[in-house]
Amino acid sequence: MSLLWPGEERAGDLFSEAAYLAAMVRVEEAWLAAIVSSGITPEEARTPLAGLVSPDDVPGLAEGAEAGGNPVIGLVKLLRSRLEGESARWLHKGLTSQDVVDTAIVLCLAEVLDRVEEELTAQAAALVGLVREHRATVMAGRTLTQHAVPITFGLKAATWLSGLSDAAEGLRRARTSLPAQVGGAAGTLAAVVGLARLRGLADPVAAAQTAAAITATTLGLAPRIPWHTNRAPLTAAADALVTASDVWGRIAGDITLLTRPEIGELAEPAGEGRGGSSTMPHKSNPVLSVLVRRHALAAPPLAATLHTAAAGYVDERPDGGWHVEWETLATLARRSVVAASQTTELLGGLRVDAARMRATAEAAGADLLAEQRSLTGFVGGEILAGTEAAAGLDDYLGAADALIDTTVARAHEIWKDLS
Amino acid sequence: MSLLWPGEERAGDLFSEAAYLAAMVRVEEAWLAAIVSSGITPEEARTPLAGLVSPDDVPGLAEGAEAGGNPVIGLVKLLRSRLEGESARWLHKGLTSQDVVDTAIVLCLAEVLDRVEEELTAQAAALVGLVREHRATVMAGRTLTQHAVPITFGLKAATWLSGLSDAAEGLRRARTSLPAQVGGAAGTLAAVVGLARLRGLADPVAAAQTAAAITATTLGLAPRIPWHTNRAPLTAAADALVTASDVWGRIAGDITLLTRPEIGELAEPAGEGRGGSSTMPHKSNPVLSVLVRRHALAAPPLAATLHTAAAGYVDERPDGGWHVEWETLATLARRSVVAASQTTELLGGLRVDAARMRATAEAAGADLLAEQRSLTGFVGGEILAGTEAAAGLDDYLGAADALIDTTVARAHEIWKDLS
Amino acid sequence: MSLLWPGEERAGDLFSEAAYLAAMVRVEEAWLAAIVSSGITPEEARTPLAGLVSPDDVPGLAEGAEAGGNPVIGLVKLLRSRLEGESARWLHKGLTSQDVVDTAIVLCLAEVLDRVEEELTAQAAALVGLVREHRATVMAGRTLTQHAVPITFGLKAATWLSGLSDAAEGLRRARTSLPAQVGGAAGTLAAVVGLARLRGLADPVAAAQTAAAITATTLGLAPRIPWHTNRAPLTAAADALVTASDVWGRIAGDITLLTRPEIGELAEPAGEGRGGSSTMPHKSNPVLSVLVRRHALAAPPLAATLHTAAAGYVDERPDGGWHVEWETLATLARRSVVAASQTTELLGGLRVDAARMRATAEAAGADLLAEQRSLTGFVGGEILAGTEAAAGLDDYLGAADALIDTTVARAHEIWKDLS
Amino acid sequence: MSLLWPGEERAGDLFSEAAYLAAMVRVEEAWLAAIVSSGITPEEARTPLAGLVSPDDVPGLAEGAEAGGNPVIGLVKLLRSRLEGESARWLHKGLTSQDVVDTAIVLCLAEVLDRVEEELTAQAAALVGLVREHRATVMAGRTLTQHAVPITFGLKAATWLSGLSDAAEGLRRARTSLPAQVGGAAGTLAAVVGLARLRGLADPVAAAQTAAAITATTLGLAPRIPWHTNRAPLTAAADALVTASDVWGRIAGDITLLTRPEIGELAEPAGEGRGGSSTMPHKSNPVLSVLVRRHALAAPPLAATLHTAAAGYVDERPDGGWHVEWETLATLARRSVVAASQTTELLGGLRVDAARMRATAEAAGADLLAEQRSLTGFVGGEILAGTEAAAGLDDYLGAADALIDTTVARAHEIWKDLS
Repeated sequence: MSLLWPGEERAGDLFSEAAYLAAMVRVEEAWLAAIVSSGITPEEARTPLAGLVSPDDVPGLAEGAEAGGNPVIGLVKLLRSRLEGESARWLHKGLTSQDVVDTAIVLCLAEVLDRVEEELTAQAAALVGLVREHRATVMAGRTLTQHAVPITFGLKAATWLSGLSDAAEGLRRARTSLPAQVGGAAGTLAAVVGLARLRGLADPVAAAQTAAAITATTLGLAPRIPWHTNRAPLTAAADALVTASDVWGRIAGDITLLTRPEIGELAEPAGEGRGGSSTMPHKSNPVLSVLVRRHALAAPPLAATLHTAAAGYVDERPDGGWHVEWETLATLARRSVVAASQTTELLGGLRVDAARMRATAEAAGADLLAEQRSLTGFVGGEILAGTEAAAGLDDYLGAADALIDTTVARAHEIWKDLS
Repeated sequence: MSLLWPGEERAGDLFSEAAYLAAMVRVEEAWLAAIVSSGITPEEARTPLAGLVSPDDVPGLAEGAEAGGNPVIGLVKLLRSRLEGESARWLHKGLTSQDVVDTAIVLCLAEVLDRVEEELTAQAAALVGLVREHRATVMAGRTLTQHAVPITFGLKAATWLSGLSDAAEGLRRARTSLPAQVGGAAGTLAAVVGLARLRGLADPVAAAQTAAAITATTLGLAPRIPWHTNRAPLTAAADALVTASDVWGRIAGDITLLTRPEIGELAEPAGEGRGGSSTMPHKSNPVLSVLVRRHALAAPPLAATLHTAAAGYVDERPDGGWHVEWETLATLARRSVVAASQTTELLGGLRVDAARMRATAEAAGADLLAEQRSLTGFVGGEILAGTEAAAGLDDYLGAADALIDTTVARAHEIWKDLS
Repeated sequence: MSLLWPGEERAGDLFSEAAYLAAMVRVEEAWLAAIVSSGITPEEARTPLAGLVSPDDVPGLAEGAEAGGNPVIGLVKLLRSRLEGESARWLHKGLTSQDVVDTAIVLCLAEVLDRVEEELTAQAAALVGLVREHRATVMAGRTLTQHAVPITFGLKAATWLSGLSDAAEGLRRARTSLPAQVGGAAGTLAAVVGLARLRGLADPVAAAQTAAAITATTLGLAPRIPWHTNRAPLTAAADALVTASDVWGRIAGDITLLTRPEIGELAEPAGEGRGGSSTMPHKSNPVLSVLVRRHALAAPPLAATLHTAAAGYVDERPDGGWHVEWETLATLARRSVVAASQTTELLGGLRVDAARMRATAEAAGADLLAEQRSLTGFVGGEILAGTEAAAGLDDYLGAADALIDTTVARAHEIWKDLS
Repeated sequence: MSLLWPGEERAGDLFSEAAYLAAMVRVEEAWLAAIVSSGITPEEARTPLAGLVSPDDVPGLAEGAEAGGNPVIGLVKLLRSRLEGESARWLHKGLTSQDVVDTAIVLCLAEVLDRVEEELTAQAAALVGLVREHRATVMAGRTLTQHAVPITFGLKAATWLSGLSDAAEGLRRARTSLPAQVGGAAGTLAAVVGLARLRGLADPVAAAQTAAAITATTLGLAPRIPWHTNRAPLTAAADALVTASDVWGRIAGDITLLTRPEIGELAEPAGEGRGGSSTMPHKSNPVLSVLVRRHALAAPPLAATLHTAAAGYVDERPDGGWHVEWETLATLARRSVVAASQTTELLGGLRVDAARMRATAEAAGADLLAEQRSLTGFVGGEILAGTEAAAGLDDYLGAADALIDTTVARAHEIWKDLS
């Protein structure tokens, strides 16, 4: 909940401080189980950790996080203090802070991408409905702010849907390749291999790799060799979120424009108290669209920050580039959920004034059909016997219906269950 | 306190959600008093508001903020419910949401700029001390990563100081011109002028302008005609914070580099538990510098977001550009305080290994004096009788001392009380 | 001239490759004269250089620039090959590449800022005219896309003028403080001091400083101690250009919106062939506004790049941060000239449909006066005898005229010669 | 060739103004042929266009481009003036400016992505060689600037290779999906459908779609429904280029660091005159790395500009967002080629000082093996009989070899022909 980013509560606990803490604990638990399962660690070390830490631990760990530059030292200490015996001893053995932080960040991102996927599905369903309903709703096509040729609102909604389809493909790809991070101090897995060797395992390297693989599987993430200094998995997720935000922003931009009183072709869903003014009783501001546009403005520079950081990675762990990622990703991710949710609501209740669309288009008919007239003139009078008189807005929609069909078919491929 | 942005607690309550709420209340209080003082409103409406709202109100107001797109409608309703009579009636009369939000944002920014100013003063003092102590500490000058000619650490510290001087001037300018926002629904002051007229004042326009001026004075801000759609006051503050961050980042970059074990000329102040690793007992990471660099990476894109928003302002209040400013500014501001504080600590306890600086420079003497040899060759042998043999690193420092003097003198002009 | 950035030819030769080359030559010439004047170099070395190099030399020097990372080595070699005797010998002595590059960049920037200043003056004059003409032109004030309260077009133009005033102040400040760069290899002036010493001058440091000061004066730049690693002079210029671009973008945004056929309150100046379409004969696109908005979108990230670079400066010259500045600044600068020129043309011929403004406002009268009605209800019936009936749009303009007067007065202070 | 962006000539004619012009002509030619082939246009209209326009036409077209906001109107006029009969009449019929511009931009991008692919292949080959050669070259692993645990240079080179693999996958995906743009004035294909109807075709919509499909095939691009307002194909290409730039920047960052004289583990390939200084004869600056880092700093904000533009698309063609894409993409693309080429050269001739790597690692042995000692202490003395004494840097490399194998195997899958 935020006074400074209204609607922020829509993100709930996704990628919150508490969720991040819980994710770090999940990582430590999965790793502890994995080094047991791979034979490196005695069975008695295996233990659930989830219950040991609660959101109440956030402030204390946060305050201690500056000393180490990240919260893992404090977290490991805290967990050990709440464990006993072999579990306390073996906790975190073989990992480095970056393993825990990166994998936890990835877990938080995964939940966000899953949630955004749900929102996209709902948005696609709403748009398929709008496309179907307004396939024949003629309106003015506008380019560079001026009237161009007629389109249908169904086609406009279909272009929105097409954008969502692109976004969904990118997000799924990013989601699927989100990897666990297990590399140890400098990405060699030296500590866990060393432990396996000291514990007498026949093939310590294989045991270490097995432990890493089990960890990824347990957490539902992709296995991958250490990516301590290759940040493409994170920038890809960020780029995918920004690409989705671009589409939401573009939809919201069309809506804020078409809700202008001089145009009046669309209106946001009514909501109790929504869109009011502190002084003007008549106002009905397109608040959801405005808030979605806000996010679309802020998102691209956040991804740029992540790329700049990634490009500056040096050594086996960099001196600043890593640390900037965490909150940048959390901010981008949470705001994406907020904007996604707002867009879903927006599309679910969008009010379309088909009559006004047609009225405006009819009034602008001379302009909207200027291209058509020039074509008929171009082709020549003899062919046109009887044609020109009949020509109206509905006769100059080109392949609109076919384009709609293609777009909807693609959406049905992406979202199998669309009604 | 944040797990995702370690050190975040250094910003304390500056520009927090609670601080923002309190600032909005200050604005409403100042305005209420101002319309009383200017004769528009009956005296009995004047009342302090500060005690009526507490940080406990943040969640409720935040949750309600989405409906109106900002928290002012909810805040006014809440305040009215806790007031009586004329105060409740007259509260907020003549203002628009943007007046309250913008002025509150400015108040929060002002506190941040004041705090950053304090940090800069402390940093300048520390640097003046380092400059004085290391005026004769010879070290290798490095360009494009390679040894160039000798410098002194005093001169390097002076160039840091010079950067702080630039930053301080920019921040002061931005601070001084931070304006109050009083414009009413569309920047015409129509409501307050209308009220003054209805209340029978002789010169309603003058009364409204007086009320606006009183509000600015009460809040310690600059008076200004409505700037609802001119965002230069905010972008100037953001640019100034980024310019300061550039300097902190540049200092931190030098430090992370010179603390590398192969160079070892600088070390961060020791702190209990600071710079440790979760697995490597020997490690002493330059954590403060790393965290400062983190901020320097993230700050410029935040200012870019504010400029992009400002450039997109349309109408008498825009549809998204305004809403993106609030948290963007708060984030930039709070993180600037964190980085400022970390830099102060860093410079206050910086450990300089003058012996190692000299040793490295001596070992690289042939390279560091290559330019000098080429000059003596250039000028010709006759002049050089007895000169070449004597030439050492200390003889090839050029105007270093004079440049230091100029830099320190400028700093003393900017910070009058520097020891 | 560019197919990819239409209108680019408006920047003429400002900050072009050829202008940059000429500026580098000016720097070498000024320095050569300065070391003569300060007694370091024999009088016979003094020579004009401007005629030695022409734009035809750009390709050759450009191709050779990669080897040294910048074009100075090649340029010095080329100039020496075209000089003789002492001039050839003493050319560039005491300078480092960065001195030449930075000062040349600054010279190019200075010319750009001067040109932008001219454009701002012309824009301010046009706006003062529009403000005067449309002081009483009532139109709908719009907030969050919806009708709010009435304003005048004169007031809207005044808010544009207010933005230009802010921009002008920032640009002038940046222009005035643009410094020459004279520091030598690592910012100590060691080479020139060394030369002065070898040449037997009594106070070599003073002589070097004199040479640096003369260079700045000759070039019309501010003197400053070396700023090899303090980039605030450049980022300040960039921030000022972006702030100006914000204003142009905001003006262009209002125009693209108000030229929409459904609104139709403004139209761009007509130009032969301007705004046409490749297929739609009726189209009149607001091309100038569109191209200005284009720049406003691209400018903020360019300034962010410069800040990120500045924050990454390490050593006495950094490994990439310096090199990214040149074309980034040139691009930002040239495009700013283009947008400035387009905005001047736009404002100089802006067509205002005052009748349509009023008609729209009258039609929306019930909404635009809703606030007023609520105020009269609030204050109470007794005061309002005879008032309500008379109340119209023109009666609810608040302090619009007074705000206009304040804005115009400020503009007259900034631009003394405004008609 | 550019003084302001040294090395720019490496991009040759890729995505130059001339290349863009030629690409636009290719689009018009392909479309003209396609409407003939699909039966809409008489056979005699088919004609090659490539020879009609040359780079000499760039200035004239560029100067005329501002009037229409893009160069297509002028280009069509020019082409028609050089054609006769049916070809002149039918040229461009059915297209809109955006179809020509977008498809030409995509063609230029495609050539760039193909070239970058070649560079990546060469880079991968060089890295596979380095990995093979330095599989056993022990060096200090460094995290947060400090010594961590030992790694091999082979592993470091493998992590670079891993980054290239990620980049290559992204670039190929973006390349494959680069679409042709055929939509007509507002994305409905109305004009070409209308022409087909007027020409009496049985299924005008099918004919139009066939013409669009043929155009894509002819140009080697993906077919796609109009994407006038869905810019994901372009932002995906930009994101892919930035992701590649991140990797090049990260490699260059490691190199600039490891070439520092105090570290001295790597050196750039020697080149005649490369890395020299204008005043310091001994200097050997890592110029290639520095210039690559330059690009990596500038690239992310360019992609951010494209996303911001994409998010602001409104109507059926936007008022600024479209126009900002062209040069932004060209700049990003050309610079990417430059950086790619420089990285190829850098990796192809990288000089590795394996002896110094080992010497530094040995000297830092106590620190680099601190983790190992703590592990042996942890596991307990009894297991360690005889182990500790033998333990050296080479014994604490963990799974380095296995990780190398996995990385190289993935590279061989991506680049089938790697030696």
